[in-house]
Amino acid sequence: MNAVVLQEGNRIAIEDVPVPILVDNQDIIVKVTCAAICGSDIHALHGVLPGVNPGIVIGHEFVGIVDAVGSDVRRFKVGDRVAVAAATWCGTCLFCRRGEFQYCLEGGVWGGGEIFGKGLAGAQAEYVRVPYADNCVEPIPDNVTDEEAVFVGDVFSTGFHAASEAQIKAGDTVVIFGCGPIGLAALISAWQFGAGRVIAVDMMDNRLKVARTLGAETVDVRQGAVVEEIRGMTEGFGADVVIEAVGNPLALQQALKVVRRGGRMSVVGLFSTAVEMPLNELVYNGVSIYMGLGNLSRMPALMRLLSRQRVDLKCLVTHEFPLLEAEAAYRIFAEQKEKCIKILLKP
Amino acid sequence: MNAVVLQEGNRIAIEDVPVPILVDNQDIIVKVTCAAICGSDIHALHGVLPGVNPGIVIGHEFVGIVDAVGSDVRRFKVGDRVAVAAATWCGTCLFCRRGEFQYCLEGGVWGGGEIFGKGLAGAQAEYVRVPYADNCVEPIPDNVTDEEAVFVGDVFSTGFHAASEAQIKAGDTVVIFGCGPIGLAALISAWQFGAGRVIAVDMMDNRLKVARTLGAETVDVRQGAVVEEIRGMTEGFGADVVIEAVGNPLALQQALKVVRRGGRMSVVGLFSTAVEMPLNELVYNGVSIYMGLGNLSRMPALMRLLSRQRVDLKCLVTHEFPLLEAEAAYRIFAEQKEKCIKILLKP
Amino acid sequence: MNAVVLQEGNRIAIEDVPVPILVDNQDIIVKVTCAAICGSDIHALHGVLPGVNPGIVIGHEFVGIVDAVGSDVRRFKVGDRVAVAAATWCGTCLFCRRGEFQYCLEGGVWGGGEIFGKGLAGAQAEYVRVPYADNCVEPIPDNVTDEEAVFVGDVFSTGFHAASEAQIKAGDTVVIFGCGPIGLAALISAWQFGAGRVIAVDMMDNRLKVARTLGAETVDVRQGAVVEEIRGMTEGFGADVVIEAVGNPLALQQALKVVRRGGRMSVVGLFSTAVEMPLNELVYNGVSIYMGLGNLSRMPALMRLLSRQRVDLKCLVTHEFPLLEAEAAYRIFAEQKEKCIKILLKP
Amino acid sequence: MNAVVLQEGNRIAIEDVPVPILVDNQDIIVKVTCAAICGSDIHALHGVLPGVNPGIVIGHEFVGIVDAVGSDVRRFKVGDRVAVAAATWCGTCLFCRRGEFQYCLEGGVWGGGEIFGKGLAGAQAEYVRVPYADNCVEPIPDNVTDEEAVFVGDVFSTGFHAASEAQIKAGDTVVIFGCGPIGLAALISAWQFGAGRVIAVDMMDNRLKVARTLGAETVDVRQGAVVEEIRGMTEGFGADVVIEAVGNPLALQQALKVVRRGGRMSVVGLFSTAVEMPLNELVYNGVSIYMGLGNLSRMPALMRLLSRQRVDLKCLVTHEFPLLEAEAAYRIFAEQKEKCIKILLKP
Repeated sequence: MNAVVLQEGNRIAIEDVPVPILVDNQDIIVKVTCAAICGSDIHALHGVLPGVNPGIVIGHEFVGIVDAVGSDVRRFKVGDRVAVAAATWCGTCLFCRRGEFQYCLEGGVWGGGEIFGKGLAGAQAEYVRVPYADNCVEPIPDNVTDEEAVFVGDVFSTGFHAASEAQIKAGDTVVIFGCGPIGLAALISAWQFGAGRVIAVDMMDNRLKVARTLGAETVDVRQGAVVEEIRGMTEGFGADVVIEAVGNPLALQQALKVVRRGGRMSVVGLFSTAVEMPLNELVYNGVSIYMGLGNLSRMPALMRLLSRQRVDLKCLVTHEFPLLEAEAAYRIFAEQKEKCIKILLKP
Repeated sequence: MNAVVLQEGNRIAIEDVPVPILVDNQDIIVKVTCAAICGSDIHALHGVLPGVNPGIVIGHEFVGIVDAVGSDVRRFKVGDRVAVAAATWCGTCLFCRRGEFQYCLEGGVWGGGEIFGKGLAGAQAEYVRVPYADNCVEPIPDNVTDEEAVFVGDVFSTGFHAASEAQIKAGDTVVIFGCGPIGLAALISAWQFGAGRVIAVDMMDNRLKVARTLGAETVDVRQGAVVEEIRGMTEGFGADVVIEAVGNPLALQQALKVVRRGGRMSVVGLFSTAVEMPLNELVYNGVSIYMGLGNLSRMPALMRLLSRQRVDLKCLVTHEFPLLEAEAAYRIFAEQKEKCIKILLKP
Repeated sequence: MNAVVLQEGNRIAIEDVPVPILVDNQDIIVKVTCAAICGSDIHALHGVLPGVNPGIVIGHEFVGIVDAVGSDVRRFKVGDRVAVAAATWCGTCLFCRRGEFQYCLEGGVWGGGEIFGKGLAGAQAEYVRVPYADNCVEPIPDNVTDEEAVFVGDVFSTGFHAASEAQIKAGDTVVIFGCGPIGLAALISAWQFGAGRVIAVDMMDNRLKVARTLGAETVDVRQGAVVEEIRGMTEGFGADVVIEAVGNPLALQQALKVVRRGGRMSVVGLFSTAVEMPLNELVYNGVSIYMGLGNLSRMPALMRLLSRQRVDLKCLVTHEFPLLEAEAAYRIFAEQKEKCIKILLKP
Repeated sequence: MNAVVLQEGNRIAIEDVPVPILVDNQDIIVKVTCAAICGSDIHALHGVLPGVNPGIVIGHEFVGIVDAVGSDVRRFKVGDRVAVAAATWCGTCLFCRRGEFQYCLEGGVWGGGEIFGKGLAGAQAEYVRVPYADNCVEPIPDNVTDEEAVFVGDVFSTGFHAASEAQIKAGDTVVIFGCGPIGLAALISAWQFGAGRVIAVDMMDNRLKVARTLGAETVDVRQGAVVEEIRGMTEGFGADVVIEAVGNPLALQQALKVVRRGGRMSVVGLFSTAVEMPLNELVYNGVSIYMGLGNLSRMPALMRLLSRQRVDLKCLVTHEFPLLEAEAAYRIFAEQKEKCIKILLKP
């Protein structure tokens, strides 16, 4: 079958690889109908994602049709239309039994490799093997399209988690740094927690425009004076909640300057370095900071929000390519951020 | 000045009463610009509201302009446009110091009489004295109309509180019994907590229609089979959350039958009798029930939701009368529920 | 093997039954070393427990040694010393995936029969088959005795759950109706949530005495005037939290009279009838009531509390019998409550 | 009257200053019976506490007898025995109305100066004026001594807040860096949230010994290898919760290394510099960090815990001096940490 395989030298290629087969009783095989390119796929290309090495099929945001079912799988049968979590979890380890599935010791994002496109063969391919299917797979209701469901297992979960952990309360002013896919998903989610207003910060016109379409006020980084502008917009008070979805030290510093005394922050951007933080001010000012990855176990709830038309993720999709044109797709995703938010690949 | 005064024999009348003056240093006098008739005003008429006796000026949902300010008041000055809580709280008693303002020992809804139209002269009048103004009064932003702000101090607070205490989670199915003003305010609020769907139950066409306008699916009590219908709509699963906003034993029994195992309920309807509850089933099924009055301290957050156009309360208002025509207004409110949700009185 | 089998005519008998064998890949077989008699076993005897019929081996509180292990079990091996939950859960159904394991659709307390001594052969026997072992079994640390660990899978979990769901806050006054095993477990647990004082209510000297040993003040029902006495002890204020662990309508009525305005209740007693509740007062007064069964997924945390000597459950055990003398044990448990709290059976 | 006055040159002196009088209607005058020396008093001496300048009476942990009462004070009368919060709050500003009293705009710790020994004349004196008395003062029950009550308004509140914001769950392993007064207060508080074990870290024998008396296991910083030792004690897993009560960059770095994936931290130590934090690891590992000052509104609950003998703060007091010997007391407090935890001054 065709698959997007990570190469040496910061690039991908379409290769012919064997079709995966059932290995464990809890596996299913999914025939992929739609896979998205994620920002971390670009990190993989650039060789900065620990444990992701050339030769692996990449891709971890996807939906498809169940093609084969292991003997212990209870929730699925061949032909079911499903969304799959970007990382699997075993359900029985110490962390899983506490409900902290994102830290699963066996699977998990960084536990032992059971993330698609890292320890597991990825999903930018015609077929993919999905372990622990009863845990990590969610049926797609008839009235939800592949093009929206594809985000439930990663970017929507992560953005929603960021909004949730920031403990948004009714009427709160929420500032979101970064209007990439996760930032926009956090924006969409913030309204579900009763945000009074959302101020979105970015430096690309297309992203700021989508943020406005989603109900946010926007601040353009290129104008400089991000902190002053937000302070001005909030009459000097600052934001009740700030979400950092960039992974950039400067954005984080600005975030720390616009959060109000006693405010809450979520940091879900992936950083490549340590960051100096003004502890000498933060303790006096009182700031709670959540840092972490998304808990993917909220997939059923998020699918219900989609199915009931309470949220609209269609605005995230800017491009769509056949799987075989993945190289062109990656080039656009990596280079043309000003025009591109999410790209879908269709086998 | 003119005021709506409760009479013997289940009726009100416009009377000429003295203009109120400042009594305590923390008082303000508010020139009323808009007051609403509340369902509990009708209870007062019928003599079933404990402690509310003929001779009192009634009315407790109102907005106006600050006309005089006590010497210890810090947040307000003459000319400010303000919304006022239906009941006051002292801020220093045992309950207030725990943040449970609705149980204030000195003021409070049922503590010592400091509810407008009960222990305090009410607000269906030209002027009203407001004790503890720094606690119980909220400025109205320029972009919020009197006709929406009038609900912040009572019906919106109560509906929001019902939704909040029922702990709605993202994607939840919420059933609301009763599409009167509180039920509709709970419906509006449910979306702010991420409800996936709301099913609203009532027996009047106009109310069901407003509920649908607000995004709810509806069940008409006149069709019978409320429990079966809701069970059917939820594939037998039942509702994650049920809000009882009627105060009717039959509705409560039905509510208990449609809530799912492990579900949550808020009961904010006012009951006139005890109700037999199937404890022998509820403990096995696992139901959490919040019963109680609204905590009015959320007024600032609710005003922000209004000011940011996150909620729209205009749909609650069906009629508007000059204060002097209050008798006609009460007649319509009491008798013509099929056409009427909220009536505003304007001095 | 020998086992306690439920008979017609409100009694049990020791019978010789086949040793259980592995049926499912997720099963283990446990060689029972210690099993407790539970109040609901007596309900079973009296034929009032729905779905529990003569012929079944009863008993659902137990510990033992793993004797055989299914091929998919990952957490256990032969020889492990383990405590087992009173009811199993599948881990993948709608409820399990929300963490509401006590409402599991497949196993679960009342879902489909997978409770020991109901749908599953019980544990007052030499061996017992345990399905879904990775979910429902907890290793016993070396420094925890069988005689304490035996309570982790049922009575301690339920008492702890009652305390948890009642949302005890630091310094709160907690009243517990019923000093049977669950009430005493709730008492022990209340301190773990920062209770300031616990007032325990019962009518048997031995139970009141144990409650006092555990740090509670006590109220003797035989003195009459329970409500007045508690009101007096709390200077008229009432209790912040009340836990009903009796399942008695009169106790529930008293509980509703001693909870303060805005207070919280947990009802974990099992009722055999409906109860009339004063909704006309409760809504004005503001009471939150949790009703439900224990969530057994807290076993690991409770085992840690035992292992770290933060709680002491030894006081619950008043009698110990060889399994073969179970008939005598049941007689004492049923008839001599004044001397008996928990009886252990040892095969 | 005699008072401890901050001098130039890192020292204090007893001076004769005027007895304070009532200024505002909400003031009371308290005759001090017992005041404690706080670590931040030493910061004041060293000139590193912003806004604290020579000439001010210092001291902010105290109890006493009400000596005079403003006309609007409702909760107190002359002769009442009271504990006072270290900082006042107005009760009506934006923050106070949200219950975030520690960020009060008018009073508050860093809002406008209304902290004793900073904007307000301090309490290491014979008399002290207390603004907003109805908010910030708590009666002392007869069975609580001055020597314990003195900690309710600052160090116990702060330690308790640290434990609370770290969201300790039943059975959790809690590591506390720093066994000074706040660290020990956090230790005492951790048990009230159900901690399974507490591991306390310090470098002074006396403090480690007190920590052990309070039920903690201890790690001696002088042995080196703090991180390795704690990892070893937790079988490599790390701590569920870490509390930083030192204000030291090295301790913070160690704290970040011993917290488990998905763990929670409270940072209440006061830092004098920024600290480099490994954001590139923390987001992957999932850490929630609360930073902030204590919320002093929990005084009533903490006083109840003392009154009911649920906690014992006597172990914090190592020295006691007459107020007139304050210079000697400060010398010991600053220089002899190995023997000293808390010093009380008695006018």
